[in-house]
Amino acid sequence: MTFRVGLLGHGTVGAAFDELLADRAGPIEASTGLRPELTGVLTRSAGDFEDILARSDLIVELIGGLEPAHDYVLRAMRAGKHVVTANKRLLSQHGEELYDTAREAQVQLRFEAAVGGVVPVVRVVHETLAAAHIERVHGIVNGTTNFILSEMTRTGASYDDALREAQRLGYAESDPSDDVSGRDAAAKMAILARLAFGAAVQLDDVPYEGIEQLTSGDIAYARELGLSLKLLGSAERIDGGVAVRVHPAFLYGDHPLASVGGSFNAVTIESPTITEITLSGPGAGGSQTASAVLGDVISAMIPPPTLPAPAIGQPLVTDVESAFYLHLEVEDRPGVLAQVAEILGLQGVSVKSVVQKGLGDDARLEMVVHRVLESKFLAAVELIGRLDFLRSGPRVIRVIEETF
Amino acid sequence: MTFRVGLLGHGTVGAAFDELLADRAGPIEASTGLRPELTGVLTRSAGDFEDILARSDLIVELIGGLEPAHDYVLRAMRAGKHVVTANKRLLSQHGEELYDTAREAQVQLRFEAAVGGVVPVVRVVHETLAAAHIERVHGIVNGTTNFILSEMTRTGASYDDALREAQRLGYAESDPSDDVSGRDAAAKMAILARLAFGAAVQLDDVPYEGIEQLTSGDIAYARELGLSLKLLGSAERIDGGVAVRVHPAFLYGDHPLASVGGSFNAVTIESPTITEITLSGPGAGGSQTASAVLGDVISAMIPPPTLPAPAIGQPLVTDVESAFYLHLEVEDRPGVLAQVAEILGLQGVSVKSVVQKGLGDDARLEMVVHRVLESKFLAAVELIGRLDFLRSGPRVIRVIEETF
Repeated sequence: MTFRVGLLGHGTVGAAFDELLADRAGPIEASTGLRPELTGVLTRSAGDFEDILARSDLIVELIGGLEPAHDYVLRAMRAGKHVVTANKRLLSQHGEELYDTAREAQVQLRFEAAVGGVVPVVRVVHETLAAAHIERVHGIVNGTTNFILSEMTRTGASYDDALREAQRLGYAESDPSDDVSGRDAAAKMAILARLAFGAAVQLDDVPYEGIEQLTSGDIAYARELGLSLKLLGSAERIDGGVAVRVHPAFLYGDHPLASVGGSFNAVTIESPTITEITLSGPGAGGSQTASAVLGDVISAMIPPPTLPAPAIGQPLVTDVESAFYLHLEVEDRPGVLAQVAEILGLQGVSVKSVVQKGLGDDARLEMVVHRVLESKFLAAVELIGRLDFLRSGPRVIRVIEETF
Repeated sequence: MTFRVGLLGHGTVGAAFDELLADRAGPIEASTGLRPELTGVLTRSAGDFEDILARSDLIVELIGGLEPAHDYVLRAMRAGKHVVTANKRLLSQHGEELYDTAREAQVQLRFEAAVGGVVPVVRVVHETLAAAHIERVHGIVNGTTNFILSEMTRTGASYDDALREAQRLGYAESDPSDDVSGRDAAAKMAILARLAFGAAVQLDDVPYEGIEQLTSGDIAYARELGLSLKLLGSAERIDGGVAVRVHPAFLYGDHPLASVGGSFNAVTIESPTITEITLSGPGAGGSQTASAVLGDVISAMIPPPTLPAPAIGQPLVTDVESAFYLHLEVEDRPGVLAQVAEILGLQGVSVKSVVQKGLGDDARLEMVVHRVLESKFLAAVELIGRLDFLRSGPRVIRVIEETF
């Protein structure tokens, strides 16, 4: 059986979705019993909306902006088709009309990709937390501004210089005003507030301030007080009402959002029942957004079944590569490090960093070695353990490095 | 319409679930159209399983351990009932039999609460990432050991002392061996590996090392190399196979799991398509686990519909409380701080911390004030802005504090 998907828009995200769908159709069919297939693509120059609609079970809207996306989404739902969209502007300005239409037409309207980049915050707020009364949502929901503030913090650069660097690297558009003014984040917070509190919040209801007025001095001085600067969206219940805002804010170092750097997005959801959950991940790129869109398509296809039968032909691997920390207490005499290094070298173990410290007659040798097969490293340690200048047994602990 | 829930077990989590279900039945009915109702509770001394089964649409298993939980869960599914369980031991040792039975009986078997405390990692791996090829899952999935290692790091305490502190605070059981040996984490990683890779991994397949042999010296020395120590579960694809393990590991400071302290759990999911997602939150307490269980019950009740109609009577609040950072460049003369403090005091603004620095004839005054209504603080700043000793306009940035 196939599940027919019509695609509106074929820009960066649309093209990435097209590719990802083709790539994942097999695994999706294996786990759901339905094979998703693209039935048509509407671009500015090609394709016919009515024709694509008639041949689809679900429409993916990746045109962006208000019109004609607004019209297409409404018509698709009224024709009984599910809709998946990444269009935060559309949702934050015409949300109630769209949600009403979805309810009336009894179709699914899904929009994970509209908020939080690859971070599945829509799903988590909407589904998992149906069980909890959410009190507050805090979010770093704009990757461009988080990148700029991270650069200002890291290098002491001015706002203007950091913005130029962001533009050079593709994190900011040539006209960055929607991002740096806080308006993009405000649209996302309006959507999150609707999800978290059921409050009919629209973009125009959300006061926002941007980052254009911030200086590297603001960041540097406040660091003395243990504060780090973010463009923060907040949505919270206050006295039976709801407050939704976007503004620069300092966070104390122990706040779960304080360490979210670069172009990452992150959201913290607070509730008395659950205390808090934090989700973080890269802000939207083409393939990340496409992946969030495809996740929505799969969810709309079929309620998640119980686990499929396990895959076969996947052996369990036990001897794996890892970086290691090695700590030796040794007699402080010439040639000790050389002997240790030689044994490591013979097993193909390459040293990344070493600290050697004298302790009277003894010395402490600490090193981190590059990734190597565990069996090889442990063979080297076995040999090192027999050296006569060792004061106590070697201590070995694995070291995990980021691979992306 | 009601949705009938039978509860097996009434310990800490069972009692919390019972209470939460009663508390949330109204909101759940409002959003799904179905009202969940408890039809019976089975404890060691009361209740009859067959009777509860006959009167339920779904069974919540919170007995724990292998038998009789195993028998009850199988019988429930074979009778066509959905099952929600928090039983990681059962899933990691009899998972395939249970998943097979769920598929054959065409019922849902959900187990969000079995892994990751309140962190919705099962949901995110299973649903969102259906669209992505997962390469690796790293997890801090045992709150007890993370608390002990955090204490050793924070205070320099020995393993034994930190364990005793964890026991005193209720984070470790009187017999902590299942946690500190790494076995509990291994069970959870077996479940995550099954979800992420479709590999039929069981607890017995997962090599694990615990934290009993770690010393405060290991932690202190390695900090010099920028490393922090965690008990890490990992599940990854290697050369067409799958490797799943639990062991102590050092993380570099920029790893998303490096800053996860206390009894928190966190999981990082890596995939070329999405780069990485990190989820973090408190490890399981009674109400947190109950909330994860209830989330599963709601998901099993009904596929998530489109958003319900918005709630009414929730005014948008715009004047909210916040802590603030205030930066003033002032003439360095006696009485300046006093005048500023007086204005703040008159508006009910209370100062939390101040840094004053001389700069030749001028001084820089930085302060953080406690939470106060924005309107009051801005009124004070307006007055301060008129003071004649000010060298430039006041700079004001909000400060966010953790509220839990």
